[in-house]
Amino acid sequence: MAKGNVIVSQSGGPTAVINNSLVGVVHEALAQEKVGEVYGALYGIRGVLDENLIDMRREAAETLERLRVTPGSALGMSRRKLTQDDYGRILDVFKAHDIRYFFYIGGNDSMDTSNKVSKMAIERGYELYVVGVPKTVDNDLVITDHCPGYGSAARFVANTVRDTGVDTESGYLSTPVKIVEMMGRHAGWVTAAAVLGKVDEADPPHLVYIPERPVTLETIFADIQEAHEKYGGVVVAISEGVTDPQGNPLMTAVQAKDAFGHIQLGGISVWLAQQVTDNLGLKCRFEKPDTMQRSSILMASPVDQEEAYRVGREAVRFAAAGQTDCMVALKREPGPTYHCTTFGVPLSEIANQEKNIPDEMIGADGHSITAAFVDYALPLIGGELPPYARLARHAVSKKL
Amino acid sequence: MAKGNVIVSQSGGPTAVINNSLVGVVHEALAQEKVGEVYGALYGIRGVLDENLIDMRREAAETLERLRVTPGSALGMSRRKLTQDDYGRILDVFKAHDIRYFFYIGGNDSMDTSNKVSKMAIERGYELYVVGVPKTVDNDLVITDHCPGYGSAARFVANTVRDTGVDTESGYLSTPVKIVEMMGRHAGWVTAAAVLGKVDEADPPHLVYIPERPVTLETIFADIQEAHEKYGGVVVAISEGVTDPQGNPLMTAVQAKDAFGHIQLGGISVWLAQQVTDNLGLKCRFEKPDTMQRSSILMASPVDQEEAYRVGREAVRFAAAGQTDCMVALKREPGPTYHCTTFGVPLSEIANQEKNIPDEMIGADGHSITAAFVDYALPLIGGELPPYARLARHAVSKKL
Repeated sequence: MAKGNVIVSQSGGPTAVINNSLVGVVHEALAQEKVGEVYGALYGIRGVLDENLIDMRREAAETLERLRVTPGSALGMSRRKLTQDDYGRILDVFKAHDIRYFFYIGGNDSMDTSNKVSKMAIERGYELYVVGVPKTVDNDLVITDHCPGYGSAARFVANTVRDTGVDTESGYLSTPVKIVEMMGRHAGWVTAAAVLGKVDEADPPHLVYIPERPVTLETIFADIQEAHEKYGGVVVAISEGVTDPQGNPLMTAVQAKDAFGHIQLGGISVWLAQQVTDNLGLKCRFEKPDTMQRSSILMASPVDQEEAYRVGREAVRFAAAGQTDCMVALKREPGPTYHCTTFGVPLSEIANQEKNIPDEMIGADGHSITAAFVDYALPLIGGELPPYARLARHAVSKKL
Repeated sequence: MAKGNVIVSQSGGPTAVINNSLVGVVHEALAQEKVGEVYGALYGIRGVLDENLIDMRREAAETLERLRVTPGSALGMSRRKLTQDDYGRILDVFKAHDIRYFFYIGGNDSMDTSNKVSKMAIERGYELYVVGVPKTVDNDLVITDHCPGYGSAARFVANTVRDTGVDTESGYLSTPVKIVEMMGRHAGWVTAAAVLGKVDEADPPHLVYIPERPVTLETIFADIQEAHEKYGGVVVAISEGVTDPQGNPLMTAVQAKDAFGHIQLGGISVWLAQQVTDNLGLKCRFEKPDTMQRSSILMASPVDQEEAYRVGREAVRFAAAGQTDCMVALKREPGPTYHCTTFGVPLSEIANQEKNIPDEMIGADGHSITAAFVDYALPLIGGELPPYARLARHAVSKKL
């Protein structure tokens, strides 16, 4: 195994910890004798195609340390569906720069890209070590216990939905319904995290709608009315990608598509809040924190920060040890204390697969999340949220 | 000055620290010998009218401590415009329960209510000490340096707009425009806080629209195009209450009104994002964190938490010392280290007044915020945000 250069790149939507993975790759690459130059490709795979590379060895150590608590993707990102010609070009660029190690930080689209690059290298007899670094707030990669980026998004959602829920509860008499819209096209992992601060049944959120459970508007209306009668107000957590039972977006509005053919969602909360007000006569507000969910540093999970860094370093170690065409996955080890180890999974087993929330984590009513999910997700956000207080409210006898 | 009982109540929208003020009032009331019973009125002034009172002496000390880090209004809130009859009823309830101290935690509507209660007590010759406790994320009370609740909302906005801005910047090639909508009907204090994490001109947010500077849609379009050319992408912070130069809501949509005749705003970001996409052909996302701004405990300002508690305690001390018909105001003392003292202001000077952002804190272009604002607001959120890193991006020479 000859000495060679590294390219690392970041793909798809950022997370609060994606730069931790970048820094993990760079730190470990700098430590490996087999590694020559360490390049970053700007704007995802586009940076490789355009030979838009930067020299990571020349970045200050302090910059790298600070990047670990800086959101966004430091190398920039873009969305581009690659053609067969593009793969040929990637290999040409790799050869020209003597790139022998390619680390792609991304989700399942990126693992598919990595897999195709790896296959083409083999076809052309070019020695190349390709290791994927998992990253997605959607938490929808298969095989790995969870995805770096998810824990921080989940911590944002757990905290802010509890907080805004408690705020909403104070004002049930004025505005009894609140809709909070979370990220998640096909999987409800981020939305489900809204329950992680829930202690009592009466605590918000009361209704959780996720893509795993298609639903009609009529059912949502009935659920809201029932919860309103029961609790005096209703906090709803809903995934942007919730569909009706026919698989159509619940929101009846014009939808745009991105380069991968994904529908660009967003706005289901706006639409649903209007529907609730118009049809149920209940005053309703909505919240759409959108990319705040994946970028908040104060809300980031310390567990997630550490793991994101670790999978970056491990990717380089795997490649240096001769592993290729694989992604670093996390395995939760048994025991009283949460701990994950890493292992390599063939990219072909990850690419274009999606992991939804399993049935045992979803309530039979279709709008609640079970204790099995809480057990799974709580360690990922760093453990239980500090308890909130409610006044006991001992009534004073009326005198008038 | 005879011994008498206390009623404390919370009015209007909650803040992340309004319970600190409640606990401050209760702690100090429990410490004052002149105070007999300590009652909380549930759901604002409505709790007084309905004699819906609870005994704060019977609440556990631990509950009170935890309330200091619990969002929402622990006593609940409601919005109700009082009639002349209502004021008579309030006095009747006070007499029936021997209430001699009334502490109302709220904004300018609440100070008006407190002022009227106080005046009616004098008219009827009923000895009553009324002290208002300032609370509003809007920061629009006059005379006081700032309002408890504001610092925490400002810290949320400073952090999340910087974070989502950096996230957006990573993806300018995909989605070059982001609109973030902040609370603020008539004053832009919360929105202005979006700049508190800005170091360079190129840092997000690039455009800040506040109610103090009416604007046309055409101007916003031109500003966005200019910023897009300059920075490659644009992050816009906008107040929900921005109007056109004729004073009409910028957003041309059906508007509802609340009990005080305030227009219920919200949704300007949704509307503007659509306008930008349709008219400029730039892909645009929006964020509307709504009440997350006033409820996030992890984002709360420690300075704000302490001051909210302190104004609660001070209100009781003022009343016990014979002051009435006043509000506790904050005065920023000169010196190298930020520090505020408290003083009493007649309620009539606060009621129904609004403090907008002064001209020297707004840029001549109408869409920027000056260093004078940063100097004013930074101490309120607990000081400068930790720095973020950007890669130096030393280019690697192309080989192909």
